[in-house]
Amino acid sequence: MPAPIDFYFDFTSPYGYIFAQHIDDLAARHGRSTVWHPFLLGMAFKTTGAVALPEIPLKGEYALRDIQRSARFMGVPYRHPTRFPLPTQNAARSFYWLQDRHGALAKPFALACLRALFVEDRDISSPAVVLDVAAAVGVDRAALEQALADPAVKDRLRSETEAAIARGVFGSPFTFIDGEPFWGGDRMPQIERWLATGGF
Amino acid sequence: MPAPIDFYFDFTSPYGYIFAQHIDDLAARHGRSTVWHPFLLGMAFKTTGAVALPEIPLKGEYALRDIQRSARFMGVPYRHPTRFPLPTQNAARSFYWLQDRHGALAKPFALACLRALFVEDRDISSPAVVLDVAAAVGVDRAALEQALADPAVKDRLRSETEAAIARGVFGSPFTFIDGEPFWGGDRMPQIERWLATGGF
Repeated sequence: MPAPIDFYFDFTSPYGYIFAQHIDDLAARHGRSTVWHPFLLGMAFKTTGAVALPEIPLKGEYALRDIQRSARFMGVPYRHPTRFPLPTQNAARSFYWLQDRHGALAKPFALACLRALFVEDRDISSPAVVLDVAAAVGVDRAALEQALADPAVKDRLRSETEAAIARGVFGSPFTFIDGEPFWGGDRMPQIERWLATGGF
Repeated sequence: MPAPIDFYFDFTSPYGYIFAQHIDDLAARHGRSTVWHPFLLGMAFKTTGAVALPEIPLKGEYALRDIQRSARFMGVPYRHPTRFPLPTQNAARSFYWLQDRHGALAKPFALACLRALFVEDRDISSPAVVLDVAAAVGVDRAALEQALADPAVKDRLRSETEAAIARGVFGSPFTFIDGEPFWGGDRMPQIERWLATGGF
């Protein structure tokens, strides 16, 4: 059984959202499973000196256009969020808490969160919105609300983010296949060939 | 007759080099010509605040790996230059001087310069190397040597670079199709579809 594909993303990354709609199907076509790793891109940006796309002259304007064109190209619905980028701690902490306790709900929750932000224009930085999204996919709202106040849950996300950066992750989405790193959803053609051929 | 495709690149950009091997064939498949626009990426970086890839923690190491993998993926020979990045004024000034006086030699010269840097590991920041490369494709070496000292030739590159930045160019390669901007060689699948369908 080949190793799973590691998929890193920040919940506020449009390119991460677009890629998340395809990565599991892509992996399955090659007999692979995936492990999803939400992390805080802002912490990685402190290492690389990067700043959020909308703040960059020229590149920020281009990115807004490219994101929407890339979504159309990939057949993914997209509505640029009113609040963008936004803090994603609550969504990411919820994901790891779910993964540890109700594993089968973690990916459906993540996809619902991404949809809430990038299709429904809901502010997923808000704990109340995250709890609503979680409840709608079958999560015990009260238990998750309690978890979000737990220092251990906060520590979990911090150490996951530190581990991602230590592994070389500096952007979203970021994928590892048998140790080979691929930054960006636009590496999908290379990822496909890598999976088909075992490397090139 | 559809409008030509505008292709912007810096001679020290590996992704620009890889893309340059394909852009004219790609355009021709869709009945298009191309206009090549070398420019100075460093001037664009002053606008965006970007720094050269090798200086960026995590991203720099990734880029080196990604460049070589992308070259293999695209079937393009690549040897990472000993001196990288390097100043490209002499190559770019020569290009525009050729384009104005001996238009048919401009692209062969550009391709030979890129090959000198990214296959033969020659230092194309050196005027002598640029003159050698030019002479090998049939350029009058003495006339070009004289041109490289001409303030008008320097001004030409500066204004071409300013015009590129004014148009929104902030990276290499950068392509416009009927006004639609595409940054990066990894946008080739989108470019193909755009040319085939007239937009999506």
